Amino acid sequence: MNEPFSPPVQSEPIAAIATPVGVGALAVVRMSGEGVFSITDRIFTKARSPETSLSESPGYTAHFGKLHDGDRMIDEVIVLVFRSPDSFTTEDIVEITCHGGPVVTKHVLKLLLDNGCRLAEPGEFTRRAFLNGRIDLLQAEAIGEMIHARSESAYRTAVNQMKGGLSGKLNGLREQLLQSCALLELELDFSEEDVEFQSREELSGQVDMLQKEVEKLVESYQHGRLLSEGVATAIIGKPNAGKSTLLNALLGEERAIVSHMPGTTRDYIEECFIYDKTMFRLTDTAGLRDAVEEIEHEGVRRSYEKIAEADLILYLMDIGASDYEQEVQAIAELRDKHPDIRLMVVANKTDTVDDSVRRAEGVAEQTGCMVLGISALKQEGLDVLKAEMNAMVEGLDKLHEASVLVTSMRHYEALRNAADALQNARELIDAQSETELIAFELRSALDYVGEITGKVVNEEVLNVIFGQFCIGK
Amino acid sequence: MNEPFSPPVQSEPIAAIATPVGVGALAVVRMSGEGVFSITDRIFTKARSPETSLSESPGYTAHFGKLHDGDRMIDEVIVLVFRSPDSFTTEDIVEITCHGGPVVTKHVLKLLLDNGCRLAEPGEFTRRAFLNGRIDLLQAEAIGEMIHARSESAYRTAVNQMKGGLSGKLNGLREQLLQSCALLELELDFSEEDVEFQSREELSGQVDMLQKEVEKLVESYQHGRLLSEGVATAIIGKPNAGKSTLLNALLGEERAIVSHMPGTTRDYIEECFIYDKTMFRLTDTAGLRDAVEEIEHEGVRRSYEKIAEADLILYLMDIGASDYEQEVQAIAELRDKHPDIRLMVVANKTDTVDDSVRRAEGVAEQTGCMVLGISALKQEGLDVLKAEMNAMVEGLDKLHEASVLVTSMRHYEALRNAADALQNARELIDAQSETELIAFELRSALDYVGEITGKVVNEEVLNVIFGQFCIGK
Repeated sequence: MNEPFSPPVQSEPIAAIATPVGVGALAVVRMSGEGVFSITDRIFTKARSPETSLSESPGYTAHFGKLHDGDRMIDEVIVLVFRSPDSFTTEDIVEITCHGGPVVTKHVLKLLLDNGCRLAEPGEFTRRAFLNGRIDLLQAEAIGEMIHARSESAYRTAVNQMKGGLSGKLNGLREQLLQSCALLELELDFSEEDVEFQSREELSGQVDMLQKEVEKLVESYQHGRLLSEGVATAIIGKPNAGKSTLLNALLGEERAIVSHMPGTTRDYIEECFIYDKTMFRLTDTAGLRDAVEEIEHEGVRRSYEKIAEADLILYLMDIGASDYEQEVQAIAELRDKHPDIRLMVVANKTDTVDDSVRRAEGVAEQTGCMVLGISALKQEGLDVLKAEMNAMVEGLDKLHEASVLVTSMRHYEALRNAADALQNARELIDAQSETELIAFELRSALDYVGEITGKVVNEEVLNVIFGQFCIGK
Repeated sequence: MNEPFSPPVQSEPIAAIATPVGVGALAVVRMSGEGVFSITDRIFTKARSPETSLSESPGYTAHFGKLHDGDRMIDEVIVLVFRSPDSFTTEDIVEITCHGGPVVTKHVLKLLLDNGCRLAEPGEFTRRAFLNGRIDLLQAEAIGEMIHARSESAYRTAVNQMKGGLSGKLNGLREQLLQSCALLELELDFSEEDVEFQSREELSGQVDMLQKEVEKLVESYQHGRLLSEGVATAIIGKPNAGKSTLLNALLGEERAIVSHMPGTTRDYIEECFIYDKTMFRLTDTAGLRDAVEEIEHEGVRRSYEKIAEADLILYLMDIGASDYEQEVQAIAELRDKHPDIRLMVVANKTDTVDDSVRRAEGVAEQTGCMVLGISALKQEGLDVLKAEMNAMVEGLDKLHEASVLVTSMRHYEALRNAADALQNARELIDAQSETELIAFELRSALDYVGEITGKVVNEEVLNVIFGQFCIGK
């Protein structure tokens, strides 16, 4: 726990239900801010030593007793006391553990609101933790990622970010940048004397090194995004190829589990399944339906553009169809046009013809693609298919152990900008431009990196980040 | 908190997620039983004084730190310590508050299971609380009712039962019964001497009084059930009367809220809405559809039986139809056959004719029923309808303040049996039967009452009760 430099000023008290909504044994309703102990004293009677008030209780103690609204008992609860600055928000915090029904929980919350708390805005607890220096912005975002993590990979990435892997890396970069900036700005102060505190060669070398490190982080986003958001997977093919049968077979029993998770921060609705530790997102199936129709009506070409956004393409064909060879041309063309795309040909309905293996081998030979035979209807070959899909997203399962990965578009863009500024700086140095210009670019790079951890605070960015949190976090 | 007579024997350690499943800021995973502190010590490192183990921490203290699976960090958590016998189960308990995502939560649970806990069965925490004398069976059931409460009334009834209202009443009855039994059994011991420790008249009077008290509780079930389960409401009428329009209008925006609450203990699926503090259950609409068809095919008569189970009947008619008067006969017949039924005639489509008020008054006059004009389509008259429905369930809104109400079928049946036994006892006394026979009936009554609070334990009954709980409670 980072000690803040001075006891924080406590803000107005806020309250929210902190646990998921629904039926469960327990629920937690929490408060943070000025006066939360005296609020609790008004509505809570301890079972033991009821004469001592909660305001006198030390931090990190729990108390059993009854919550009441005037004469009316609301529930039997456990009250947990955290005293400023030793708490998540660094403010005084009271956590009330009550019985977990929706009606009870709402009663407890209402009681707190009636007694002087304001309903917390989404993410407001975490926002206070950040503003009071308890965590940096990356760690705040990691908490959000952790809560919404739907796969093992996304969860591990969030844990690493919470532990401060990326924060540490960025703070190191910032320090080096700060040093170079400081030296340049010192030169500007002594500009009449025309000194160089750091040789331009040395500076150029250092900026070059920093730029490379930033670029490496920028590149890690390609993998980081797959880990945190899942592998966007598109199934394409003619309508009779069996796309929806395959979709259902892949989702299988996972469908219900994953689809029932409410309230992610993301806008799109999609079906997911998890294999090993990787989440595969079967993207926008409505859109794909259009694509399939276009294949029918206008040929395969136009659908290429639609599928370009996917991380992995499964081209599904009916290997038992008499005209299956007519698709070979289209697949080969797709392969040639997009050599970088992760493309797998899935030869469905192997159970309908005797020579499906020979046919599939022929397709593989003619297209240069991996071809995998399955029967979606009979659920044959699906495990191999999933394993191969996982293998195509090469090394992902090892990567989630790496501590420094960029997983967020926001971080990616800031780093991209920082890399550009460093590139500009290096060009200016090499062109022996004026110190002011070089310093300006380095300062920009510094600000871009600072935006990520929240050293440079932008109110609008904060609103976007914390607005995606659920209320109670 | 009731002190048990001796420190309980601790059972094998169990663990479960105690908060609802879903996305939220926090989740609680808890353990109860032997060795939960040393299990925690293996997987948890305190942020402060990491050298002191959790096993040495006093009860009712909280500890911030990291959960780890070997070298791998699982999450930053708050660990809460309860020491036997001062805990919900009276065993040692550890509650772990982690971040609230489904993946994190499952990781924490898995960690506990990997380190020696068994997954708790549904209701097992509460079952231990009951078996160890921390709460009686009524209070255990009240916890379940509270968690599943969907209306204000059901919640208030559960709170009252948790406070021990009904328990106290029943314990009083039991004591009086015990006394009479003891005196009778003493007589049996001294049977050779032919003494009467209590005159038969006195005994008869006492049994009579007890029987009346039990009958009163039995009668309260009629209201108690409505409070805890909601008012079973049936809408009947010809297909063109606008039943589904009315259904949707009544449910309105509530529909989504109530329908999304998962995991109640009850088997039926139905739509509910809450007016004021009362829940109305619109029962088995599929069944009603059949009823409606039968009205078409075989007349109103046969549908009477189907609707006899409802607490409240809305007879919906199209007051604008040219043949509306043909239904008057059917309604009057329904009224005559079931004078006790709560029946309201709802005259729909008042917007389609000018003389709807005159028509409705005519129906009221001829049938003796309350007739209420609405337009379900135009959403006119619905508020009045809801208020009148509420008024028909007379006094319910006040009743939920009463502390002693029987709300469960199990309690109702046991009390019904006890009343029967008391009735038998009184008849035997009046017929001057043998002491053994009288004592047997009184002992039966005693056992029936004891079954309710759990003084007389029946393993099968316990399995049914706790099997309805969610895991983690």
